[in-house]
Amino acid sequence: MIKIVVDCFGGDHSPQANIDGSLAALEQFPDLYLILTGDSSAITAELSGKRYDSSRLEIVHAPEVIGCDEKPTDAIRLKRESSMVRAIRILRDSDDVSGMVSIGSTGALVAGALTRLGMLEGVIRPAFCPILPTMDGGVVGICDSGANVEVTSAHLKQFAIMASLYLENVYGVSSPRIALLNVGKESEKGDDMRREAYKKISEVPVVNFVGNMESRDLLSGSYDAVVCDGFSGNVLVKTTEGTALELLGKVKEMIYSKPVYKLGALLQKKMFADLKSMMNYQNYGGSVLIGTRKVVVKGHGSSRAVAVQKCIEQAYRMEESSLNSKIEEALDKYDHYE
Amino acid sequence: MIKIVVDCFGGDHSPQANIDGSLAALEQFPDLYLILTGDSSAITAELSGKRYDSSRLEIVHAPEVIGCDEKPTDAIRLKRESSMVRAIRILRDSDDVSGMVSIGSTGALVAGALTRLGMLEGVIRPAFCPILPTMDGGVVGICDSGANVEVTSAHLKQFAIMASLYLENVYGVSSPRIALLNVGKESEKGDDMRREAYKKISEVPVVNFVGNMESRDLLSGSYDAVVCDGFSGNVLVKTTEGTALELLGKVKEMIYSKPVYKLGALLQKKMFADLKSMMNYQNYGGSVLIGTRKVVVKGHGSSRAVAVQKCIEQAYRMEESSLNSKIEEALDKYDHYE
Repeated sequence: MIKIVVDCFGGDHSPQANIDGSLAALEQFPDLYLILTGDSSAITAELSGKRYDSSRLEIVHAPEVIGCDEKPTDAIRLKRESSMVRAIRILRDSDDVSGMVSIGSTGALVAGALTRLGMLEGVIRPAFCPILPTMDGGVVGICDSGANVEVTSAHLKQFAIMASLYLENVYGVSSPRIALLNVGKESEKGDDMRREAYKKISEVPVVNFVGNMESRDLLSGSYDAVVCDGFSGNVLVKTTEGTALELLGKVKEMIYSKPVYKLGALLQKKMFADLKSMMNYQNYGGSVLIGTRKVVVKGHGSSRAVAVQKCIEQAYRMEESSLNSKIEEALDKYDHYE
Repeated sequence: MIKIVVDCFGGDHSPQANIDGSLAALEQFPDLYLILTGDSSAITAELSGKRYDSSRLEIVHAPEVIGCDEKPTDAIRLKRESSMVRAIRILRDSDDVSGMVSIGSTGALVAGALTRLGMLEGVIRPAFCPILPTMDGGVVGICDSGANVEVTSAHLKQFAIMASLYLENVYGVSSPRIALLNVGKESEKGDDMRREAYKKISEVPVVNFVGNMESRDLLSGSYDAVVCDGFSGNVLVKTTEGTALELLGKVKEMIYSKPVYKLGALLQKKMFADLKSMMNYQNYGGSVLIGTRKVVVKGHGSSRAVAVQKCIEQAYRMEESSLNSKIEEALDKYDHYE
């Protein structure tokens, strides 16, 4: 049995999306056991009338909610009865619980994970690794997308090892092509930190390092994961999402501006539906925080049930594949805190 | 008469695009005088049979070309007879020449501008400020997009002042809305450097600072320019271009996959042409390097004649509006090297 805690509050569509996503995940995995944290009467009300295996679902009452505007460290320290802090505590204290999913405040979740869970043996800092769809039907991971605004080359080396193992074990990519985000492809591009990272990553035998990547090639399908500091990784992910949304919005606006365009779009109905589904970030789950002692998955604030279900699946797959022990092993072998 | 030097070699379509763009600019501005540098026989051959006002066009022979793979500082030092170095020398030595346009190696151009031209009074470092189209039909500047991989808050403050004056004087935007690129909108987001920059920029009365911007909102039309370090600015610009290209490419691929989609696209022919034209970066010129003692405009390597013409227009407008003296005045007034 794989046990995962789901923080049911936080997120634009909580608790409904979080609970519906949880029930869908229970249906998907017969050996999954879920603990839902949050206001128990609200959760019970949401569950009433729905069909699910109640022997694999447990509710833990936690009436408080952490808002996205609260100072992360204060929220974690003071809101002990919040659905998020409760979930983190359960994860920390229960040997048989392997991971958690939250749609709440990113800052609070990172602060809580760092202070309450701690890191895997050998990990300097954990990193977020969200997954985006590439244009050839594959996926690409971005590591780190915002857990570390500042990094050193030693961090980037670890991110490369962790992202490679993540893509291999959770997405079944064999020998993932790992790139370093830079301002040009040549090995001497960027600042000293990037040049050092380039050298360090290329020396790790277990990483299939393919060199520097320019951000314009992110969706090309030529890379399985790209390694970067959390600031530019954040820019990379949000620019990709933003440009895709703005552009599809513009196309929609143009289509509605003339009857003949609308007519054309009627003929392409299925095409646009496929495109929308391909670009729908809900289908790709959340940002996995790699490197903490137990699995933490952060869903996008706008997550609906399908995204929450995907987040739970990510946590499940990480545990199923023993990703964390593989990371510890690899770091022990190939990372010596130079 | 406004005199501008055009480096005719470097770029995927040089010298043809550079020369055709030059002739179009001469046609556009009756008081423009151009000096073309490069292999004079190649330039003469390209000009032959074309109509232009030869009294406003001069050719300076410079047979060498700097490749994009050459080490910038070496190339500038050793290739004295290259079209780029010759252009920089003319710009430096001729009081009546106000700017230059090059499509060649970015690194070499920055190195050459820094070492041969120097900075405007008060400027710590120059910054690239390319312009992208927003979805509401406007434009947004990104400053810096790659001249400075590492920056301090003092740099960012200057970028804010320079970008604001650039958008106002060259694009006619009154009281440009200037934002700071960050991982979240709240003022305390990011690292210490960003928080310091936030404070410093908000204290400049001449800058209409609207706070932090998340990269997903770049194309929304809510900002006229965004200020950032050159690394994340580079990621921002290239991700926007890359995502738009990949997405439009995907739509095209899908359209061609089924006759009925193709039929629909026939009805939308003008719509897609409008969209393509709107997203065509050729129409927005190049990256202006702001802060050097004389105007330097760097065109995209893939520039065709229309893009080169736009680059020359940018250099022309910068001189016409006395942008550089306005920058020196503003820095003298509002920037005191804290």
